[in-house]
Amino acid sequence: MANTKLEDLFLMTLKDIYHGETQILSALPKMAEKASSGELQNALKKHELETAEQVNRLTQVFQLLGQPAKGEPCEAIKGLIAEGDEVMLEIETPEVCDAGLIATGQAIEHYEIARYGTLAAWARELDMREAADLLEQTLEEERTADETLTDIAMSSVNRQAA
Amino acid sequence: MANTKLEDLFLMTLKDIYHGETQILSALPKMAEKASSGELQNALKKHELETAEQVNRLTQVFQLLGQPAKGEPCEAIKGLIAEGDEVMLEIETPEVCDAGLIATGQAIEHYEIARYGTLAAWARELDMREAADLLEQTLEEERTADETLTDIAMSSVNRQAA
Repeated sequence: MANTKLEDLFLMTLKDIYHGETQILSALPKMAEKASSGELQNALKKHELETAEQVNRLTQVFQLLGQPAKGEPCEAIKGLIAEGDEVMLEIETPEVCDAGLIATGQAIEHYEIARYGTLAAWARELDMREAADLLEQTLEEERTADETLTDIAMSSVNRQAA
Repeated sequence: MANTKLEDLFLMTLKDIYHGETQILSALPKMAEKASSGELQNALKKHELETAEQVNRLTQVFQLLGQPAKGEPCEAIKGLIAEGDEVMLEIETPEVCDAGLIATGQAIEHYEIARYGTLAAWARELDMREAADLLEQTLEEERTADETLTDIAMSSVNRQAA
């Protein structure tokens, strides 16, 4: 694309994370079902509800741009979810599977932290304040979700897996 | 795998990031060549040298486990690099391409932060102190590399792209 503007790159990245979030939304219930730690199960279910709201926020950002909410296949999230599926399929020991589910969850959270951090910074630069606020709200939720997974790993799951 | 131990999951994840790092090592010079900001170019070149050292540290961790250093295809990094290639191929405006290169770089850094954070925590749990120290050293470098990219984006690249 010649003469690509930052607005175009913003829209490309928005479509990418929108597709990613919808894939995460279908992966989370499977991960929660597979988890054996009750605490982990609850955290994954809570994050499923948050993710549905995050998809709503993305739809609002598309509206602010006057664009239809539309995803573009996101290879990175596809790869991350494939790695998680492998853990769920291959690891039969429940405590070790929990440790693997947390690792997958944190890799996904970190991808989202990177993407929302970038999108929020670009939105500020482009003077799209309402969009930036929505993206920063989600960014904070992703950071908290990542910290919750660290807490669960450190307080119980890793010890039980070892 | 029945009776999977945390040691097995640790080794699986180590192979995954080892393969990922070798892919990143070949992607970084292409990204540096494509960057138009001198500051960004220097940061990517510096991180290429760091990445070579990180591969060495991973080799040492394999040795501590008495295992050959061997990668397993890492779908997530493959996806992240594919997204970066798309940016480099499709975006002809140099300033906007720089913003996209930073976004790709930060998504890769965040993947590594998640993986090294997990591996270091597992190594501590498994009483592999020397391995944990090596992994934490790399974790710190990845965090710093991510912050450097944020600084470059915020101080110049995003403004020039907008």
